[in-house]
Amino acid sequence: MTGPAPYGVFSVGKGPLRLGVRSGDDIVDVTGVHELFAVGSLSPLLAAGFAAWEETRSLIEALIGETPDPDLITPLRRATMHLPFAVGDYVDFYSSHHHATNVGRLFRPDSEPLTPNWKHMPLGYHGRSGTVVVDGTPIRRPAGQRGPGDFGPSRKLDFELEVGFVTGQGPPLGTPVPVTGAEQYIFGLMLVNDWSARDLQSWEYQPLGPFLGKSFATSVSPWVIPLAGLNDHRIEAAGQDPTPLPYLLPPGRGLDLDLEVRINGEVVTRSNTKHLYWTMSQQLAHATSNGATIRAGDLFASGTISGPTPDSLGCLLEITADGQNGDYLRNGDTVVIRNGLLGECSGTVVGWGTRRQ
Amino acid sequence: MTGPAPYGVFSVGKGPLRLGVRSGDDIVDVTGVHELFAVGSLSPLLAAGFAAWEETRSLIEALIGETPDPDLITPLRRATMHLPFAVGDYVDFYSSHHHATNVGRLFRPDSEPLTPNWKHMPLGYHGRSGTVVVDGTPIRRPAGQRGPGDFGPSRKLDFELEVGFVTGQGPPLGTPVPVTGAEQYIFGLMLVNDWSARDLQSWEYQPLGPFLGKSFATSVSPWVIPLAGLNDHRIEAAGQDPTPLPYLLPPGRGLDLDLEVRINGEVVTRSNTKHLYWTMSQQLAHATSNGATIRAGDLFASGTISGPTPDSLGCLLEITADGQNGDYLRNGDTVVIRNGLLGECSGTVVGWGTRRQ
Repeated sequence: MTGPAPYGVFSVGKGPLRLGVRSGDDIVDVTGVHELFAVGSLSPLLAAGFAAWEETRSLIEALIGETPDPDLITPLRRATMHLPFAVGDYVDFYSSHHHATNVGRLFRPDSEPLTPNWKHMPLGYHGRSGTVVVDGTPIRRPAGQRGPGDFGPSRKLDFELEVGFVTGQGPPLGTPVPVTGAEQYIFGLMLVNDWSARDLQSWEYQPLGPFLGKSFATSVSPWVIPLAGLNDHRIEAAGQDPTPLPYLLPPGRGLDLDLEVRINGEVVTRSNTKHLYWTMSQQLAHATSNGATIRAGDLFASGTISGPTPDSLGCLLEITADGQNGDYLRNGDTVVIRNGLLGECSGTVVGWGTRRQ
Repeated sequence: MTGPAPYGVFSVGKGPLRLGVRSGDDIVDVTGVHELFAVGSLSPLLAAGFAAWEETRSLIEALIGETPDPDLITPLRRATMHLPFAVGDYVDFYSSHHHATNVGRLFRPDSEPLTPNWKHMPLGYHGRSGTVVVDGTPIRRPAGQRGPGDFGPSRKLDFELEVGFVTGQGPPLGTPVPVTGAEQYIFGLMLVNDWSARDLQSWEYQPLGPFLGKSFATSVSPWVIPLAGLNDHRIEAAGQDPTPLPYLLPPGRGLDLDLEVRINGEVVTRSNTKHLYWTMSQQLAHATSNGATIRAGDLFASGTISGPTPDSLGCLLEITADGQNGDYLRNGDTVVIRNGLLGECSGTVVGWGTRRQ
């Protein structure tokens, strides 16, 4: 095993919530390793900050390195995974150049696909943190206004292939996180599926941005991999033209993580985080450049990660050209986002109005 | 005293947080009235739901009615007020027809001022809940991109005159709050100032809506008045044309609350919640119509409340016609929103980069 394993929160049967790290097909229970782990949530660790992240990582590595007590091992298949921390604010960026261009072309066919601000800053918006759900949670097809006078279940339910980072507590209100050193505020990375109802979204989103077209559910992986565990996957940031403003420089490092989406077992796209134009450091520096604070548990998602080729597009809006070349999601469809390190983030669509499970 | 008084959280000197209700220029300590009040926050009461709200209100009314123990009385001037509950998600609507029309005209002079969706649904967006601050918190002028290649302190710092309602826990994910009965999920109302940096906002807000132009701070009054305390101020909802879709009908009741904004003691506008086009019931029904949940402590603000006349506009963007007829906020300016029942929501602007107080 190289580098820190992903952290998660699990339970077995009717047992209490436990903190664990993944090791192959097993979970190692690390609840007893540190008092910060006692409550069965990552929230206290996130709040404790960078030095505590480093300290506890060493303790966990020592535990795993010396073949842990068999009592501390649970096979993954026996565990129920939970949302690993209380989500503070949820921000979703729009940082893939290919995605933003493709969506602009489909949503605003009579305008330039990219708005003039796109290459000047990592655009983003606040999503609904109260509907962030963990991998495996059934996703109910949302209802809503599909156009003027037309209310009903969405006919254009989509996934969005994303990753997201979770933060610790930032500096006080009024003090930005500098782009250099921004990663000291980033605990780790997870997979994100920002489910989207394109019919609701396209009718509602002007002028205030996405609201009900996305607020019904956002799925995340149960595993958060500490940033230190991604050292082998860090790359030089993508080239940026025009040169960003000084508060966004140097850009920090990019990520090279292969991502795959399957629907009902069939691969529909393969993409990679290297297709993101803006880095995590730039996203965090920008989001706090006005003095806004970050809290432990704030989640910042990348936006849909699309590559340059037709087989690397990050959502069905792009893959099907808004339904012209294929279907949106049907009831019963299971969407799984997968990465070798981060695991899986899955959800199955259930119909609007069907009985709750 | 008629009807329930506003609820708030206060402390005296270095004492603990206490739950209190306002009675004229005094606070009556009600911490001991119910176990839900023990932690010095409204959050447990919000989570307990409608029946508990009714039960505790009776207990409080009984306590206040029988001249409470002098030990339970603190003069307002001796108390420090706190954010009364942990804010879950923060949504800001855009429900004043006059405001939306005026802003559309200023931000999009070449288009119809109202987007085609405006009269079909209460438009809104998610704001940053982590930067909701209580009355009296200094407001640091934000920095940001004022245009391409131009970063610095905002030159167009504005207030927005709003009210907001706070909710209890809603039905499970996938189940909307019906418009009829929506008020059973609404605990009460507070004053809101959604501070806005118009230069940052106008450069960033397409296509994803307001982000850094508003995320730096949102002030709320320290007092929350239970909905039941507003009975004398409920009015028939404003007429709506076209007739809204069935999920937004019947509209529920409107509110008649006089609101005033002073800058450095001078009245700059007088407005009223009756100028809102959409009701709270419609806002809540819409926000959950896609199956999104609400949590205890979710805050839903009205959007800027502008009336039809030049002396009833709810922000400086409108009052000054984007700075053509007057100034935006200067450092040192104190903005106070006031209503006779809800009290005050104030904030003083401090300069970007000045030493923290």
